[in-house]
Amino acid sequence: MKTNQIQIFDTTLRDGEQVPGCKLDTAQKLVIARQLELLGVDVIEAGFPISSPGDFQSVREIGRIVSAPVVCALSRAVKKDIEVAADSLKTAKRPRIHTGIGTSDSHIQFKLRTTPDEIIRRAVDAVKYAKSFVEDVEFYAEDAGRTSNEFLARVIQAVVNAGATVLNIPDTTGYCLPNEYMEKIAFLRDNVNGIDKCTLSTHCHNDLGLATANSIAGAMGGARQIECTINGIGERAGNTALEEVVMIMRQHEHLGMHTNINSKLLLETSHLVSESMGMVVQPNKAIVGDNAFAHSSGIHQDGVIKRRDTYEIIDPAEVGVDESRIVLTARSGRAALAYRFKNLGHNVTKVQLDSLYEEFLIVADGKKEVEDADLEDMISTSAV
Amino acid sequence: MKTNQIQIFDTTLRDGEQVPGCKLDTAQKLVIARQLELLGVDVIEAGFPISSPGDFQSVREIGRIVSAPVVCALSRAVKKDIEVAADSLKTAKRPRIHTGIGTSDSHIQFKLRTTPDEIIRRAVDAVKYAKSFVEDVEFYAEDAGRTSNEFLARVIQAVVNAGATVLNIPDTTGYCLPNEYMEKIAFLRDNVNGIDKCTLSTHCHNDLGLATANSIAGAMGGARQIECTINGIGERAGNTALEEVVMIMRQHEHLGMHTNINSKLLLETSHLVSESMGMVVQPNKAIVGDNAFAHSSGIHQDGVIKRRDTYEIIDPAEVGVDESRIVLTARSGRAALAYRFKNLGHNVTKVQLDSLYEEFLIVADGKKEVEDADLEDMISTSAV
Repeated sequence: MKTNQIQIFDTTLRDGEQVPGCKLDTAQKLVIARQLELLGVDVIEAGFPISSPGDFQSVREIGRIVSAPVVCALSRAVKKDIEVAADSLKTAKRPRIHTGIGTSDSHIQFKLRTTPDEIIRRAVDAVKYAKSFVEDVEFYAEDAGRTSNEFLARVIQAVVNAGATVLNIPDTTGYCLPNEYMEKIAFLRDNVNGIDKCTLSTHCHNDLGLATANSIAGAMGGARQIECTINGIGERAGNTALEEVVMIMRQHEHLGMHTNINSKLLLETSHLVSESMGMVVQPNKAIVGDNAFAHSSGIHQDGVIKRRDTYEIIDPAEVGVDESRIVLTARSGRAALAYRFKNLGHNVTKVQLDSLYEEFLIVADGKKEVEDADLEDMISTSAV
Repeated sequence: MKTNQIQIFDTTLRDGEQVPGCKLDTAQKLVIARQLELLGVDVIEAGFPISSPGDFQSVREIGRIVSAPVVCALSRAVKKDIEVAADSLKTAKRPRIHTGIGTSDSHIQFKLRTTPDEIIRRAVDAVKYAKSFVEDVEFYAEDAGRTSNEFLARVIQAVVNAGATVLNIPDTTGYCLPNEYMEKIAFLRDNVNGIDKCTLSTHCHNDLGLATANSIAGAMGGARQIECTINGIGERAGNTALEEVVMIMRQHEHLGMHTNINSKLLLETSHLVSESMGMVVQPNKAIVGDNAFAHSSGIHQDGVIKRRDTYEIIDPAEVGVDESRIVLTARSGRAALAYRFKNLGHNVTKVQLDSLYEEFLIVADGKKEVEDADLEDMISTSAV
């Protein structure tokens, strides 16, 4: 592994599946797990086994069918949770237990109703107990985004000493700004002894629309694992979108960050998850939305027809999209109209185009999108 | 106006309306324009008048009905465009012409097929010509995100000298990382003479999922206007979501940035735009998605029931959402189940709850969401 290799930890089947209205059965989860392996994710978080018998069973089955990726199971810092997680992972070739506890004042005081020292004690106990079952133990400091860097470093130091291999620093409530989150990760990198032998991980929620930016900022601060989901699904406003962080690293080579993801499978993976879960992807979703590579304004169409990269930084083929779409609307110009007529086999002269364009605008002002049939109507009734 | 007051420039009716599949008629645009005024936006970009007769008419009518916000019309750096824009703005109380030209190598070489010096000449001519019609002239340097900072500063210096009042620095292709975009804006602030008398503006596209982060980064670098749309709609993967940037500034008081937006109208404005345009908002959309304040996992529900802010940084009422939703799924725990039974008028004992919870998990593993009716069934058939 290169130093700047970024592990992609997919939690579509755990954080993603925690979404109201998207229950998957075990068979559906297995199809998605296979697709995630093909896509090239490094870790699959397969479920939260203590939460229900169905979840336990799914982790079991995913462990059985997945070969290359690490299979990870979630638990709270509670003995029973860890035992059930360990049990569910018996089938996995590369098992990981993910355990942790809240570290922010809000979580310590109002949710867990305990003290900071007690939190550290429970965290250490949980990591040690998990280590008695598996070698690979990831610790999460829940609500780390709102935890002071000093206390967070104390907690992380304690769990590193206890044997944690991966340190997950979740922005559970989606609160941080990118520069703050980068500083948080860098603070841990610089202030925890022995952390160079572990992997720092991001886990960013999207409550303010910053999950993607925060994940990249975390990697710039020293994280070498990004937790994310297909289509950015997850609790509330969701998690970090896998397709976005992967394509940012690809487009910005100067970051020197690489992943094992086969980006050509991004669109089909997005469709599979959206359809299985019944979770719609909005047309203006980055990378995988229906309109991500569609152009309807005249200025943009003119540019893209001359040369694609005037308005597109990503070649659609790179993410599994057939081609850029030139959509004819009232915002379209002569260039796009001539281009479409040519595609339909009609080479129109400049004079013809002027007259057809006037007619086109009248049609276009009355409807959302002008179709090929409308164009054929125009040309058949035109004087030329 | 306070120094750190951030102007909100809404382009839902121009960039947003440029989306394939979302044609609005003039009547619908007027309803949205009225709502934007209520919401408190500072500028409404009402259309691109040269592009079609319908668009011209809409700008005219919006100028007539809107009082407080500036009404802005888009044009290319072309005389005819500017004349038509000026004509369409005759009804507006506070008219602004928005004109500009591509400044990146890609746009200069492949789209405009000209030279850098010629670009500056055309930019200056356009600004001067627009100034002959209105006082308030905004200049956009298209594809500024991929333009070298040095050339961009030359262009911006020239148009500032020519009388531009607002300088829009669009990341047209959604390419920049937040730190790069912040440095770009700061470079202009520090290297263009007289720019302190003008307003620097962000206009960020979302191709890599970074539009929101880039807009905030731009404001941190010195921009005092953010261009955005309701629900983040716009060309391709869309534009910056108004609701996200506004709530980031509100949540992060230490930024010292304020807007005139009445956030309590965000949800209803989102619904109005989504319904008028037929553009679906995905459930995991930040701030305005159906799930933005919904909780289904047991850990989160337990926290939110104890105290809302353990898992929510925004009070839902602040953005016009009635209340947080506790959704019962296979991921829910005993706390949420007891809470819902209590809301239905059933106070169950701890022993009852244990038995009901077992039953609940079986039901929940088989369906997406457990409804009140399911709970009533359980309690009526329970042994207790």
